Amino acid sequence: MNILITNDDGIWAEGIAVLKKYLENSGHEVLVSAPDVERSATGHAITLRKPIWVKEIIKEGKLFGYATTGTPADCVKLGLRQLATKKIDLVVSGINRGANLGTDIPYSGTVSGAMEAAILGYPAIAISSQKHDDPCFDTAGRFLCDFIAKFDMQIVPDYGAININVPSIPYEDLKGYKITRQSTRRFDDYYEQRKDPYGNSYYWLMGTYLEEELTPDSDIYAVLNNYASVTPLTLFMTDDKLYEELKKENL
Amino acid sequence: MNILITNDDGIWAEGIAVLKKYLENSGHEVLVSAPDVERSATGHAITLRKPIWVKEIIKEGKLFGYATTGTPADCVKLGLRQLATKKIDLVVSGINRGANLGTDIPYSGTVSGAMEAAILGYPAIAISSQKHDDPCFDTAGRFLCDFIAKFDMQIVPDYGAININVPSIPYEDLKGYKITRQSTRRFDDYYEQRKDPYGNSYYWLMGTYLEEELTPDSDIYAVLNNYASVTPLTLFMTDDKLYEELKKENL
Repeated sequence: MNILITNDDGIWAEGIAVLKKYLENSGHEVLVSAPDVERSATGHAITLRKPIWVKEIIKEGKLFGYATTGTPADCVKLGLRQLATKKIDLVVSGINRGANLGTDIPYSGTVSGAMEAAILGYPAIAISSQKHDDPCFDTAGRFLCDFIAKFDMQIVPDYGAININVPSIPYEDLKGYKITRQSTRRFDDYYEQRKDPYGNSYYWLMGTYLEEELTPDSDIYAVLNNYASVTPLTLFMTDDKLYEELKKENL
Repeated sequence: MNILITNDDGIWAEGIAVLKKYLENSGHEVLVSAPDVERSATGHAITLRKPIWVKEIIKEGKLFGYATTGTPADCVKLGLRQLATKKIDLVVSGINRGANLGTDIPYSGTVSGAMEAAILGYPAIAISSQKHDDPCFDTAGRFLCDFIAKFDMQIVPDYGAININVPSIPYEDLKGYKITRQSTRRFDDYYEQRKDPYGNSYYWLMGTYLEEELTPDSDIYAVLNNYASVTPLTLFMTDDKLYEELKKENL
């Protein structure tokens, strides 16, 4: 396949290099379009009021890919609209350093890279390795290659993408994968207030995850039990149940 | 009610001033926490690796609100966690200059302000005036005040918010509102390539909307027919139908 890859940790991150290596070793042709620096937690931001610069990145004497001054969503848009010279069969965003589970998803640059591809009509996968401080990119890379060899992406409807999270464990210890739902896992956050030397207040966002929801169908449950979590996502956020209720009540 | 308001057009934008005025004239107490400059199309970005500065903004000798160096989601988080001195009853994000319909939603800073409040457990509304080049903030402001006086926000489940788009027409011409679904309305985009004086390529994102989906339940249909569009949104993006199919097939 011809595969476009991006990430939000930036083009120099280890995760995207491992992803490229595994995909190429499996016989795929890979085009890299990724942010020039880390752009984590950018959500689905795109660049509207200023232009995007693009630069060829050479590693070990060979073209590694294209670095852009944009977000992951920009990189995918540019990659598909401008940089690709062949028909792209699949877009993969990752391998992210750290999980994208539950309420991480709206903040995630990694997931937005996949969702941007979905908006543009391409099959798309986001892939993350569980632990930010102890990722296991090889396990995620191997899992992804197995997954795309077996999984029929045609089953995913328009405007949909697959969000994969792989535990930070050796490949041999991975028990397989579970089809999961986006959980309510969330960050319990607060701000630390400081003063700069000129007397102005500034705030650092702090916090830890609340690992509260452990229903067996949830994304976090799968990962904590040594399964890769595979969640089918859609761009459409209409609350269908509430829509039906409100239709009855109000009109 | 005690209402926290934010936007993505920045604290000096007309839309947020009109929103504040209408809410105060309806007897509500308003706290403003908004970006110091325009931060449109920032999606659900938040600020993680650097701190956020906060500054009091005085207009006509009175405190108008707090300007931050963060995104709309940051402003809501800071407003609720740090700046509010009373219990906040409702968060409103807007009034945006331009609609947030269909596939605009993942890119929208306005909607992400409301979704951030939903993540933190607060009732939340995003409100936009249809036309970027010809907004009608008064119609949107009046509609919003009517809406919150009548609509029971308790009906919205956890992690849900209401997305309102109001046509750019005089209030008297507004036919009422429709409960709608997020449509597939999308931007047909391309890039214009240029060279800077040093020979580097840069790209401007260009395009126009494809007004393709006109099903009567869609957000865009309502607005084009002179109704305010009221869409119940949820943070949970799991594709339930595909989830059920995949569960049957793979496990």
